[in-house]
Formats: sequence, structure tokens, C-alpha cells
Amino acid sequence: MCAIVGIYGNENAARLASIALFAMQHRGQEATGISSSCDGKIYTKKDRGLVSEVFNEEALTYLRGNMAIGHNRYATAGSDSVLDAQPVYAKYKLGQISIVHNGNLINKDEVRNDLIDKGAIFQTGMDTENLIHLIAKNTKDHLKDRIIEALNRTIGAYCFIVQSRSKQFVIRDRYGIRPLSLGKLKSGGYIVASETCAFDLVGAEFIRDIRPGEMLIFSEEDDIESVQLFEPEFRPCAFEYVYFARPDSVIDGKNVYTTRENMGKALAKNDANSKVKYDMVVPVPDSGVPAALGYAAASGVPFKYGIIRNHYIGRTFIEPTQEMRNLKVKMKLSPMSSIIAGKSLLVIDDSIVRGTTSKRIVKMLKEAGAKEVHFRVASPEIKFPCFYGIDTPTKEELISTQMTKDEVCKYIEADSLEYLSIEDLISAIGDDRHYALESFDGDYFVKA
Amino acid sequence: MCAIVGIYGNENAARLASIALFAMQHRGQEATGISSSCDGKIYTKKDRGLVSEVFNEEALTYLRGNMAIGHNRYATAGSDSVLDAQPVYAKYKLGQISIVHNGNLINKDEVRNDLIDKGAIFQTGMDTENLIHLIAKNTKDHLKDRIIEALNRTIGAYCFIVQSRSKQFVIRDRYGIRPLSLGKLKSGGYIVASETCAFDLVGAEFIRDIRPGEMLIFSEEDDIESVQLFEPEFRPCAFEYVYFARPDSVIDGKNVYTTRENMGKALAKNDANSKVKYDMVVPVPDSGVPAALGYAAASGVPFKYGIIRNHYIGRTFIEPTQEMRNLKVKMKLSPMSSIIAGKSLLVIDDSIVRGTTSKRIVKMLKEAGAKEVHFRVASPEIKFPCFYGIDTPTKEELISTQMTKDEVCKYIEADSLEYLSIEDLISAIGDDRHYALESFDGDYFVKA
Amino acid sequence: MCAIVGIYGNENAARLASIALFAMQHRGQEATGISSSCDGKIYTKKDRGLVSEVFNEEALTYLRGNMAIGHNRYATAGSDSVLDAQPVYAKYKLGQISIVHNGNLINKDEVRNDLIDKGAIFQTGMDTENLIHLIAKNTKDHLKDRIIEALNRTIGAYCFIVQSRSKQFVIRDRYGIRPLSLGKLKSGGYIVASETCAFDLVGAEFIRDIRPGEMLIFSEEDDIESVQLFEPEFRPCAFEYVYFARPDSVIDGKNVYTTRENMGKALAKNDANSKVKYDMVVPVPDSGVPAALGYAAASGVPFKYGIIRNHYIGRTFIEPTQEMRNLKVKMKLSPMSSIIAGKSLLVIDDSIVRGTTSKRIVKMLKEAGAKEVHFRVASPEIKFPCFYGIDTPTKEELISTQMTKDEVCKYIEADSLEYLSIEDLISAIGDDRHYALESFDGDYFVKA
Amino acid sequence: MCAIVGIYGNENAARLASIALFAMQHRGQEATGISSSCDGKIYTKKDRGLVSEVFNEEALTYLRGNMAIGHNRYATAGSDSVLDAQPVYAKYKLGQISIVHNGNLINKDEVRNDLIDKGAIFQTGMDTENLIHLIAKNTKDHLKDRIIEALNRTIGAYCFIVQSRSKQFVIRDRYGIRPLSLGKLKSGGYIVASETCAFDLVGAEFIRDIRPGEMLIFSEEDDIESVQLFEPEFRPCAFEYVYFARPDSVIDGKNVYTTRENMGKALAKNDANSKVKYDMVVPVPDSGVPAALGYAAASGVPFKYGIIRNHYIGRTFIEPTQEMRNLKVKMKLSPMSSIIAGKSLLVIDDSIVRGTTSKRIVKMLKEAGAKEVHFRVASPEIKFPCFYGIDTPTKEELISTQMTKDEVCKYIEADSLEYLSIEDLISAIGDDRHYALESFDGDYFVKA
Repeated sequence: MCAIVGIYGNENAARLASIALFAMQHRGQEATGISSSCDGKIYTKKDRGLVSEVFNEEALTYLRGNMAIGHNRYATAGSDSVLDAQPVYAKYKLGQISIVHNGNLINKDEVRNDLIDKGAIFQTGMDTENLIHLIAKNTKDHLKDRIIEALNRTIGAYCFIVQSRSKQFVIRDRYGIRPLSLGKLKSGGYIVASETCAFDLVGAEFIRDIRPGEMLIFSEEDDIESVQLFEPEFRPCAFEYVYFARPDSVIDGKNVYTTRENMGKALAKNDANSKVKYDMVVPVPDSGVPAALGYAAASGVPFKYGIIRNHYIGRTFIEPTQEMRNLKVKMKLSPMSSIIAGKSLLVIDDSIVRGTTSKRIVKMLKEAGAKEVHFRVASPEIKFPCFYGIDTPTKEELISTQMTKDEVCKYIEADSLEYLSIEDLISAIGDDRHYALESFDGDYFVKA
Repeated sequence: MCAIVGIYGNENAARLASIALFAMQHRGQEATGISSSCDGKIYTKKDRGLVSEVFNEEALTYLRGNMAIGHNRYATAGSDSVLDAQPVYAKYKLGQISIVHNGNLINKDEVRNDLIDKGAIFQTGMDTENLIHLIAKNTKDHLKDRIIEALNRTIGAYCFIVQSRSKQFVIRDRYGIRPLSLGKLKSGGYIVASETCAFDLVGAEFIRDIRPGEMLIFSEEDDIESVQLFEPEFRPCAFEYVYFARPDSVIDGKNVYTTRENMGKALAKNDANSKVKYDMVVPVPDSGVPAALGYAAASGVPFKYGIIRNHYIGRTFIEPTQEMRNLKVKMKLSPMSSIIAGKSLLVIDDSIVRGTTSKRIVKMLKEAGAKEVHFRVASPEIKFPCFYGIDTPTKEELISTQMTKDEVCKYIEADSLEYLSIEDLISAIGDDRHYALESFDGDYFVKA
Repeated sequence: MCAIVGIYGNENAARLASIALFAMQHRGQEATGISSSCDGKIYTKKDRGLVSEVFNEEALTYLRGNMAIGHNRYATAGSDSVLDAQPVYAKYKLGQISIVHNGNLINKDEVRNDLIDKGAIFQTGMDTENLIHLIAKNTKDHLKDRIIEALNRTIGAYCFIVQSRSKQFVIRDRYGIRPLSLGKLKSGGYIVASETCAFDLVGAEFIRDIRPGEMLIFSEEDDIESVQLFEPEFRPCAFEYVYFARPDSVIDGKNVYTTRENMGKALAKNDANSKVKYDMVVPVPDSGVPAALGYAAASGVPFKYGIIRNHYIGRTFIEPTQEMRNLKVKMKLSPMSSIIAGKSLLVIDDSIVRGTTSKRIVKMLKEAGAKEVHFRVASPEIKFPCFYGIDTPTKEELISTQMTKDEVCKYIEADSLEYLSIEDLISAIGDDRHYALESFDGDYFVKA
Repeated sequence: MCAIVGIYGNENAARLASIALFAMQHRGQEATGISSSCDGKIYTKKDRGLVSEVFNEEALTYLRGNMAIGHNRYATAGSDSVLDAQPVYAKYKLGQISIVHNGNLINKDEVRNDLIDKGAIFQTGMDTENLIHLIAKNTKDHLKDRIIEALNRTIGAYCFIVQSRSKQFVIRDRYGIRPLSLGKLKSGGYIVASETCAFDLVGAEFIRDIRPGEMLIFSEEDDIESVQLFEPEFRPCAFEYVYFARPDSVIDGKNVYTTRENMGKALAKNDANSKVKYDMVVPVPDSGVPAALGYAAASGVPFKYGIIRNHYIGRTFIEPTQEMRNLKVKMKLSPMSSIIAGKSLLVIDDSIVRGTTSKRIVKMLKEAGAKEVHFRVASPEIKFPCFYGIDTPTKEELISTQMTKDEVCKYIEADSLEYLSIEDLISAIGDDRHYALESFDGDYFVKA
């Protein structure tokens, strides 16, 4: 997942980049970093931690210059090292570059092995290192041409921003799987960011999304140059709408919040002929809220905050005793007993991955007195791991790969269970385009 | 405000106290502390910081014993010192005691001056120190009698838990202004806590509220002893329902969430004949959400999360430039432009105190494209400072003391502004009792 | 032990106090604090930690005013709480006071019980709280008179500085057990400090020591007022010279470094007729160095740094395996094998308390190849606990109370062992006065 | 400078490596790191900070395996990034390697440019990255052969330890400029470390020094294999004896402490005919102590600790006012006024680099009352920057490049100034070999 940002042509470039990264903190909390360019030199600061922890005044003063790129890193298994923070910086034949990347390269190992065969060394596990090597090993005279040839060797879902000492190159893959938008800063210059929710905070106006297969080049000489590198085959990731993006972002023209409301409405339509009488629609906060509001609006069933989320929770601070088994989920989510006791609940969450959290939520609600818990999921069954940049577990861990819907219902001890159909998901986002749905339908259309 | 808890008769007393304090973190984040008693000795650990920061395994191991009292301290002006953390511990003639306190003593200065005249010293600014002195200077042979006589000198809104080396004394003032409830722990023993939201997490069942003017005594010899110290004149604080308590708590028999929904419904009823057509009800998150849901349910106007709250915000991490003036509020709250652009919004917040936040929210929504912003407040105008334990500013800072409703509307640049009437507030909570409403009506019924 | 400082009449009072406390950090590392007075108000900042950790610019800005008192707290068993940090502040009848204290009151419990009987409460375990109560309970109209009467009830080894909102009262007990000196600040005003090593750093010139039984009063009206409260019976603590004070301090007219050299010389004189030929004098760093230099100078035996001290050591960072038993002492002290191998060493340390460290040192030196280890101690046998403010262990833990010299020699596995005689100790410091020697001779001359 | 360590064949490999690094903390405090190998995988943990901060139990548990290499990094200008911490790890054609390095490669830029020309990228500023590239680009089938060919391209002062998944290769350059010793662990296996002071702490016995131009190979199959890669031209760095090594280390057969004593003795011999009568020899602690002891022993002038070093100093915690100009040096070093007042001092420091510290020390001593300050330096004039791994400043900053001895004497305001002659330096260490003396004589014998 991760978030990337580029600021070009603003004297507060690093400062604005840090604010944009702050707005996109939900896309990655493990590590964060920014590279700025100034007077023929690239400055980089990256570290473990939240944006607000890493970027203090000292760091922002160090990051001088009127262009900057930044990155928030999502925690993935086996990569807790500060070394896997981005941007990735390198000296190479044409000078210096720094790169940020959001996505996943599916021919990564093949390219890497090929490069290693030719004597390259890899110091991290990051995809981004591949691109730097491809650029460095190329023999063209101009960085632009090297980037283009490097991308010809690169297959996957990606958004890159490559910063040299005076330019920025912004690239989105031909499918447009990961989101990337362009805005104009009121205080001068441009911003490119994974999500538009970053624009308001930095004082930018949305211009347009980067096109699938497009490269934008920012330089001092010209205005923004656009090069269409690849024939577009637009297939944006449906999961961004389902779960990952912030609800106030607009991704490729569609407001995330509204698509989630629509998902809830579709679930309601599906339940229309149900004989069960639900007393209230209860969202699993915060992710299930818009769909639950949509369900309530479409069905007329009252919406109630039957579960309260505690925002003070970090890690569990004490080891619970035997009696306190379910403490961890309860410290995060509290059932509102007096509202739900004796009631038949229609509970909505955005997705079921492993099933363990859903099981704990159902148990918690029943212990709090709920008469019935009908579970609705605002996405289809996740049957396939995502290889395009969303961190889903392996096939063995995905409950819907291992169990049928009825088995899952029994496992989580719900009174009924329904998912959104793939068709309804498409309609909810907008049936004017073809989505990347591989987690649901197994169509791994990006092939090496 | 603050939160207090007492655990009696459970071998994990301090651990359970810390979990209960965690559940009541919203009542105070500045400092926290716990005293336990074991083998004739009182152990205390208190410090600045959140519950999850102060109470690690080392601290909980130190706090041995099967009884414990705890406290969360709310930040108030001029008292950031760790010395003002509670419990307050003292050696005195009869042995050792430790006290926690939630509330405000209105004859505090008078009692303090009298005690000082007689040679007492005060090392902190806390009310609690008064009570300890009154107990210590008394000449009765039994702590119980000393507490009773000390309380006879004590006027105000208060909940105290006094812990000796073997007993706990729990006291609620005669008006029952601050909430305090009794629960039975499934793992043995009892819990007393400011809010029932603590009960679920520790595995306790609600038994009943402490009665106004009642003292409960926990000791090894007897079962719980109840003494009615004062003639009850029940006047619970309305502000707990409006703003302070967690929505999943039940205070004196009334579910907080439901009372807030009712407040929103009353606002809707009041607007029923309005000629303005509102496109959506938008809550100021998180506090305005239940009232906004109530308004939407009663009015039929769709509920939309037009403002997103960012939960990563701590303190502002960078100093904004001139262009970034409103950054601070925007880092916490983001308008959902694509939802609200061109729309007429009915915005609901729980209260207006100084008016500055409301003004910023209206401005932010208009800049994000809102056509009209109609502001509704789910409480009456706050015209009087609270002296009973809620931290309101002085008369000079309260906007409703300085301006009429129309002037406030103009000041915050809203298109219209309505408050909940005092009568509607009473009905929303339940008109079966007399509330403490001094912030709204200036009736300072607790007199020295 | 602890350190105290007072600054009067300098606009950088708190800043200078913090620098003086930094210079006296060796007297206490557990906690530190400063109170300043300004415009009728006392400001206090105290916390766990080193001076350089607690006093940043923010703290020093808060501590405004042209007078300040400060304290470094020594860690003692059972008092790790931040509550036991000084200064101790209180509101009382005449206004506000803050007190710092270095020493130990031997009638503390008696006074405390008496005060408790009369209704006082004690919130800490500190002696200082006694004095505040005695002052507060007194009925005289002037603070000066109250302090005098309070001191009439106070028996022990003490140095107090009492700060009101406009004055400072500096008191040293009639025996002058703990050191306290007066200096004149080049930048204006005065300093009083436990050790003169603080004077150079703040830019002060030594004026004189506070006299035993004297009270100095600093106020705006007058120049320094001196009141002789008690008939002096001068008996300064010998242990300050032996171990506790910094070598560059001059205590009551005697340079600490020189007295330590003299102690070493006396040990050498004692060994003059020894038949053993020592190859080198090796100090246990850093405390044994001056005595070892004195021994070498007097005996002609070459001085060698046979043991190196590692200054990076904090706490042990890893748990050693079975093979790494003596790791802890070795991480602090390393034997210089190539210097000592095959040699006969005359090792000098300042004292032997429990014997465990000495035993480890001898073992370490032998393992590193030393042929013989002759242990010399630059103080007499410690046979009695100190009750006058030095933190010695109980009688049961003092090795010289439990064993004869020969038994100790055998226990620590040294080839010979000699102590300084009490007479030689007296001569080394200067036989012009009567010292407090209770740890060595059991003469507890301060009696309740 | 830096320190390196390798542990081979011990189940506590990483733990022992961390202890050895702790013992060598004086060689670098900026960053530290360890790589272990286990079951075909290399584990690395590195970070900013001291050894005792970075290596807690969690880190040591992660670093499993029976071989480990480690590094302490010295702070150098422009490289405060955690990225410049070692070991440097890489995946390459033959598998995985991790490398630590102490020294400086003088043909670094040439090799780097050549590698960059061929398409390599450099992610750090470290020499070590060169070696990894040379190994990776090589086409030999065995790591050993690749290392050998890589070293053929490598000119400079270096000690490398290269760790693969099952072997360790230890290399010292042909001149043996940086120290490196081999020891046998009592608990099994071997240790290689920059300084022998690490051996005692881990429980190892010194075997021998690594020979100039030698490569040692540790593997499971064979016992230690030794390959003489280059014809030795032994020229160990004199500066290690003068300043950098710990006094209890034995470097290439010579005890550091003794060589420093000898340097002091030579200074004394040189002063033998001086007409000035010195009252005492005063070392600048801690570095000048052994030479001062040597001087005192040879001259008969008494040795006195006229300057006390404060070990609590970290960074300066407060900003001094105008009056507190020389606070920074005084917080670290305090003059012992009562010892030195009115005296003629012979002050000894190990070296003069920029002259600013020496000037401050002389000034401080004179202000403390010293009548005369005769400055002696236990090394020759530093006239040339070191390019072999000691961090000396540029020619412009070296005072002895800019000024004659008399000018320096005047600049630092000393009453006289003498340096050790190059001949005396050689004699002091031992005239049985040829030293690297480039800082003193400009003989840059390692040529690209």
C-alpha cells in the first residue's frame, strides 16, 4: 500500500511534503522519509515512526530546496528494518537520484536475478532498488530515456516518483492500479500524491489524475511535460474503495465515501426480501461506517453506533490474566450493551480476511446481550492473495479460500452472513470501467 | 472532570484498576495513578502520561494487594506538575491513607485558609489535600467517623474513594453531581468507577449507582456497608450527557448515547417548520455524531460524514508558514469536498464554548465548497462557568456570555444558528429528575 | 548525601543554580529540582534524572526570578519516587516557602510522631517535610522566628536553605557536619553551595564557609545578615574527605585532593618497614587515585594505572551467560594485563564497605596475571552505620563489623590488607579540629 | 577509526560480539551494528547510538547463529545517517555477504567512478560499498577468489571482515596500518578484534596479531586457514599509540600504556636542562595521564591532578549567557585552584590539533591562579592530514601547518611549548619497526 508524494517548484517543498504525508498516514505507519534537491545535491531524511515523529523543524531545515519527494511505508512481514524505508537514494553515472514507490513489481525476482547475474548487489528487499539498478546500468545519455527503458523491463502495479538534482519524473503503470493525482499549490508549484485527501491540507487544487501509462516530467525549463509511455489499459484497484483509501479522497473521479455508501445500499437491496426483522444497523468502526449508513438509508433500519472505538489504544500495555482473554479486541472496540441488549443486529464490516476479528466481534456483541447478530460484509469474499501492492495474507490464511460462506458464518458464530457480490461491488464504484478485482476473482491480469 | 476507580477483594486489584482507567482515559489524559494496599502498607505509582504509558508490568507488580484505587487527571490551567497527580497519600495519626477525588469543592479556599491558620501546610493545589487534612486533624478514634466529620466540612460536587490499609470508603455528594457506579467482578470482588464503560472491559456486572449522599464501606469483616451520610437532593450534571461521558456509559440509569440522539431529535423538531431545505446532516466528529444521527432520524435529512477526523494527530509537529494558517484545525478535521460542495449543510456539534473552533469549522466547510452552513448545537447556550468540576473557561471567555445568539451566528459566519433549549435538554435526558444545569441557567445550587 | 545550592540577587538565578547542581552531580543522581521566587510567587521544577536531563531551556525560562534554590538527590533504598525529589514546597500561614536539605535528622521520627499526633499529615518520607510542618505550626509573626524555633526542635546533621517569596535563609547545624560555603558571583549576587567545586563553573569567588550553628539571611533590604543560632561544636564529617566530595573542592579550608594524597602518604609510612617489595602502586579508579599518588610519592614505588575505568558503562545492557559471571565489574574496570602480569601490586581503594567489590577486583587482577595483590584502604575500618547523612548499609552488611582485618583479607583473597588508622586519617585531613568519625569509632555524638 | 570484531564458532556469537564492541566503544560512538549468520541466512541489526543502547536482549535473540561480525562507527562530518552504519549487507550472485571495515581506501573515488561508469549504484558514502561491488562484479566461482581479486583493486589502510552464510574472511592490509588481533575464546571458537582490550571481557586469550597482508579464513570444514595475500611492508600507525587505542590494549606486541609513559619520559629528558623549575606535572585528563606519569617518573617533578574531568557531561544542556563564555570546556574540565594557585605547571596533553582546546585549557588554568603554564605535547607537531583512517581536519585547520611552534605557544598563551620529536616518538613505541607517521612527516607511503 504505502503513500507517495512529490512537491515541485515551492520553496517549502519538504514542509509541504511532510504535511501531505501526514494526511496519508493511514496508508503506512512503519516508516517515513523525504528527499529534497537543492543546488545539485540530494538531501534525505528517513526513519521508523510516524510522520509527526520523524519530521521536526531540524529535519525540515535540513531538507532544503524547492522540490521534494516523500513516502510512508506500510508494515509488512519481515521488513521492520529502517533500511527498508524510502526514498531510496543512489549515486550513479549521471549523478544522483532518489526514488519513491507505491505498488508491487511482479517480475521483481526475475529482474533482480538477472541483475545479480550481471554483478549487481541488492542491499534491501525493496522493489525500488530494482528500478535504480535498471536506470544505472542503462547506457543512454539522458535520465528520461533510461527511466523509459527501465520501465520497459518493469511489470507490475506501480507509481514511481524519480527525483534527480533538478527534475521529477512521475510514472503510473499502464493499468492505473494504484491511485495518483496531480494538484496545483496555491503557494506556487505542483503536488503529486497517492490520495487527494493530501491536497486540502497543503492548500492545493486538484487538476487531474495521472493517466495510466503516463509519465509527467517537472523541470525548470519547461512547464509540465507529459509522455504517454504505454498504451493505457485502465484497471484501477477496487480494494482502494473497499478499504484502503481515506473516505474524503476522490480516486480516479470517484469519491470513496460515496462508493462505500453505495456498497451498503447494495447489501440492503439484497436483504430486501429477508424475513428477519433487524432492530438496527451497527457498523464495525471506523471502516464499516459509510456502508452501514448506506444500508440504513436504503433499508430504513435505524443506524446505531452499537460498537464504540477507543482511540487511545496503542499496543496492549499489560499482559492480561486468564480471565481477560478477549481483552485486546475489547480495548479497541466496546459494545454498547444498553443499546444492543435483546436486539437483532445487522452488523457491517468492510471485509473478512482471516475471520478471527469477525469472530471476536460477534462473540463480544452476544456477550453484551445482542439477541441476533447478522453479519454483512461490504466486499465480496476474498479468495485470492493480492500481488499488486495490498498486503493480504497467503491463500492458506484467507478464510474464504478455506471455507464456504456457510462455514464461515458458523465459524464466526453469526446468525447469518452475506457478502457483496462482485457485480454489486462494480456497480457501487461505477460500472463505467474495468476494475482490478484479483483478490475476489483471481484474475491476475498483470502477467510477467 | 477526571475519572476514579476502586477495586476491592480481587488479587489482580491494580491490574483491573489500570484497565478500568484505560477505559476512562477520555476523562483525563494528563496524569494517572494507582494506590494499592497490602499487608499494612500502601503502595503508590503515579506519573504524567496516559494509562498505557504509566502502567507497565513493573508498575503493576509493585502495586501488590487485593485492593486498589486509581485516578485519571484532566489537564487544567496551571497544574501540569506531576505533583498534582492522584492518588494523594499520607501518613497520619491512625496510619496511612490514600485518596482519589473527582469533582470540585466550592468551599475549598475557606477550609484551606482555616486549616492554614491552624498551622497546616499545603503542598499541592488539589482539593483532595483538604480532605486529608480534615481527616488527620480530627480526633475521633475511627477513620469512618473522621471521614464523616471531614465531609461535614466539605461542600461541593465530589466523588471520593478513601483507601486505608484494609478498607475502602466510597462517597458521593448529596446531589450526585458526578457519576459513580458499583459493579461486581466476575473474577471476585467489587469495582466502583466513574463510568460504567469501565465495567465491560474488566469483566464486571453493573449492580447499581452509588446513591447521592451515600458512603459505601468495603472491609474484610463485613459485606459492603452502606451509610446514608446526607439527605439526598439528587441533581446529576447534565453536561456529562452533553459532552463528557463516553457514549456507551449508562449514567444514573440513562444511556448516554440515547440521550444524545434525543438531543438531536429535539433539534430536528425545532427545525421542522424551517423553510430552508438542508441537503445533509453533518456531524462535527466525534462528539456531534449521536445528535446528528438523531437529527437525521427525526427529520429525514440524510446523514453524511461531511467532516473526517484524523486520529493520528497529536500535537502539531511543524510550525506552519503564513499560507498554512488554518492548518491546525485542518490536521484534525478534514472537510469532504466532493460530498459537501454546493450543498446546504446542517452541521451539528455538541456545544459552543469560546466560538473559535466553530468559526474555523464553518470557514473550512465554506472553503471546501459548502453553499450554506446551518449550525446546530446539541446543548443550550453556555452562559456561566461551571464550578462543579467541569473545566469551563471564565465568563469573559464564554462567547454566549458576551454575545447574543445572532451575534454568535454572525461571528462564526454560519447561515443560521440554533441551540437546544434547556427544556429540550431536560426532556432528552429524561424529565424524571432535576439536573445540575448551572452552565446554562446560572443556578449555582451548591452553596458554601 | 545530596547537594544543595542557593543563588540570591542574580537575574539568571535558576540558570546558575542548574550549573552549580551540574558541578555537584556526583553527590546525587536520582533526582534534581529548583525553586525560584519572582513577584510573590514560587516556581518549582523537579523530576527524576540528571541535571542535564531535567533542566532544559523551557524549564529555565519557567523558573523566573532573581533567587533560586536547588537540590540533587542521592538514591536511597525505598525512595525512588519522584515525590521524594526536592525542593519541598508548601503554602502556609505566612505565604509560601520552599526548602532544600542536605543531611539527616536523627530525631525525625519523634518529631514526626508528635506532629502526627497533633493532626499533621506526611506525604513523603523526607526529613524536609518535618521542618516545613514545624515552621507552619509555629505562631510567630515572622518567618525568621519560626525557622529558629523549628530548628530548636531539630537534631541532626543538616544544611537547609529556606526560600520565601523574597528571602533566603541558609542554616548549617551546630557541628558543621555537612559542608556549606558562601561565594560572591562575578555577575552579581551570592551563591551558597555544598561544595566549592560549583563556584568556578558559575563564576563565583569563595568568601567563606557557613559557620557551624549559623544562619545567613539574604533579603532585598539589607546586606547579608548573620545570626549565630547555636553555640558551635565544630565536627565536620571525615567521610567527605575520604570519599564523597569532589577532589577539587575545598571543604572548611582543606583541599580534598590534598587530604587524600596525605591519606596515601600515611599508608606508605605505615608500610615503610614492610619486607614485601611492591612493583607498583595501582589505584582503584577513580576514587583511589589521589591516595595512590600520595603513596607512590612517599614510598618511591612507581604509580601505574593497572586498572582502566570504562566511562561508557551505564547499567549492564545484556544478561551474561554462565561463562560471563564477573562481567559486570569487568565492564566497569579492566585490568591492564601487560603491565601487571607477574608483578606484586600495592592496590589502593578509598574504602571497603561490604567487601564484594574488593573481592572481585582482587580476583580480576589475579586472573590478569598479578603475582601478589596487597590491598590498602585509604580509610579506617567502617564498623558503624552513619546516621548523619551518608548512605552506609546496616551493621549486618558492613564487612568490618562482621570480620576482623585478617578475616577480611582472607575473604577478599588479598595477599595483605592494611587500613588507615583513625589517627592517620585525622592527621591527613588536619589535626587542628575534631571530626565526625562515627562510621569508624561509633561515637554518635549527635544525640536526640 | 572505528572498531571491528568477528566471532566464529561460538553459540553466543552475537552476544560476545556486542560485549567486544562495548569494550571498544572509545573507537566510535555514532552507530553500531552486528550481522550474524545462521542456517543459510544473514541477520543484521544496526542503528545510531551506543552499543549498550542498540543491543538489548531482543536484538541479541534476533541475531542467532554461531558466527557474527560487528562494528562501531566513529562520527565523521557529513555522515550522521543511520545508513552509514555497518555491517554492510548485500545479496549478490553467490548468495549473501555482510562486511565490516576499519580504515580508509585511498583509491576509493577512482574505483567508485569506474564502478559507476559500468552501471553500479552507490547508496552510501562508505568505502565498504566499494568492496562489495568489486566482489559482486567479479566472475570467479568462489567467494575467496573474488575477495582476493577485489583486494587487488583496493589500495589503502584497511581491516575487513567479510562474512558469508558459513564463513568469515579476515583481512589486514599489507602495511598493517590499523590493528587487528586474533584470540581464542574459552567458551569455544575464535575472536578477531581491533583491540585486545576486547579479549579480557569476552573471556579470550590472545593468540597473535593478524599479519600485514594476511587473510584468515574461518570455516566449518577446516581449522583456520591463513593466506598471505600481499608481501608485507609493515608500517603500523603511530597515532594508535599516541591517542586512539585504549591504554590497556596491546597493539602489535606493544602495550599502549607503556608507550605513552615512554613518550612522557622522553619529554622529560628533553626538559632535563631547562632552567625553569616546575612545581608539578599536570595531565589533561584522561588522554594525557600516562605521558604525565612518565614525565613525573623520569623528572622527579610531582604528579598532580590539577585538572578534574567531569564524566557526567554529555552535550551542553543550556545556552550560557555572555558571562559564561568558557562554560563548555569548564563543564568538562575543572581546574583544581587550591593545588595549582601560584604554581608553575608542566601541563601534558597527547596532541594539539586545532589549538582551540589547548588555548582554553591554558586560560582556565591561569584564571584559576597558575603562575606559569608550560605546555608539553606527547606527540610531534601534526602538520599533515591523515588519509589512512584517523579523522584529522584539513590542512587549513591544523594549527601546526599554519604556525611555527613559537607562534602556537603565543596563540595558546602558554609560557613555553615543546613537542615530542619524531625520533623520540619512534623510540617510545619501539624502534624495531617502521611506523606510519604521515600526520607528522607527510610521508604518504600508501599510494594509489
